Amino acid sequence: MEILVTYDVNTEEAAGRRRLRRVAKVCERFGQRVQYSVFECVVDATQLVLLIHQLEQEIDTAADSLRIYRLQEPRERHVQVLGQPLVHDQHEPLIV
Amino acid sequence: MEILVTYDVNTEEAAGRRRLRRVAKVCERFGQRVQYSVFECVVDATQLVLLIHQLEQEIDTAADSLRIYRLQEPRERHVQVLGQPLVHDQHEPLIV
Repeated sequence: MEILVTYDVNTEEAAGRRRLRRVAKVCERFGQRVQYSVFECVVDATQLVLLIHQLEQEIDTAADSLRIYRLQEPRERHVQVLGQPLVHDQHEPLIV
Repeated sequence: MEILVTYDVNTEEAAGRRRLRRVAKVCERFGQRVQYSVFECVVDATQLVLLIHQLEQEIDTAADSLRIYRLQEPRERHVQVLGQPLVHDQHEPLIV
C-alpha cells in the first residue's frame, strides 16, 4: 500500500530537528522524502507495523504529532504538485 | 473526495509564515488544519479547481512546494496518528 507520513515537530529546537532527521531516516527505508517533513512510503501490512514501531521510537509522543495516511493508488495519478517538486533542502544542508 | 494538502514553506522568514497563514485560511474553507502545514479537506471536482486556483494565488511557486493528495476514504479509517492529535499551536499563537 502507498502511504504518506506527515510529521509535525517544532524544528526551532535542535532536539526537534534531530528527531526529524531520525524520522526521515526511518521513512527513507520505505520510500522517499518529498517535503521537509512529509514522506511517501510503500509498505505491506507487516512493514507498516514495523514502520510504526520504528517511528514510535524516534518521536516525542508528548510533543510531536505524526500522521500516516493511506493514499489512493497509484499515487502518481492522485497527487498534484504546485510550486517546486522537492524543496526541503532549503531548510537544512544536504548532508546532515 | 477527501484530500490532503501539505505545504512546504520556509517559516524561518516572516514572509513564509505569512504565506502559510494565507494557505491555512484557504484550506480551512474546505476542511481543517491537522498539523502546522497539513490540511484535510473535502471537495468535489469543482471545489478542487477553485481550491487549487486560490492556493496558487497565495504560495510562492518559485520557492515553496505544495502537494495535494487524494486519500483513501473514509479518511478516518485510513489515518493513524502517533503522538498528539493536533499540535500546530506550538509554532504560533492561537490568534494570528
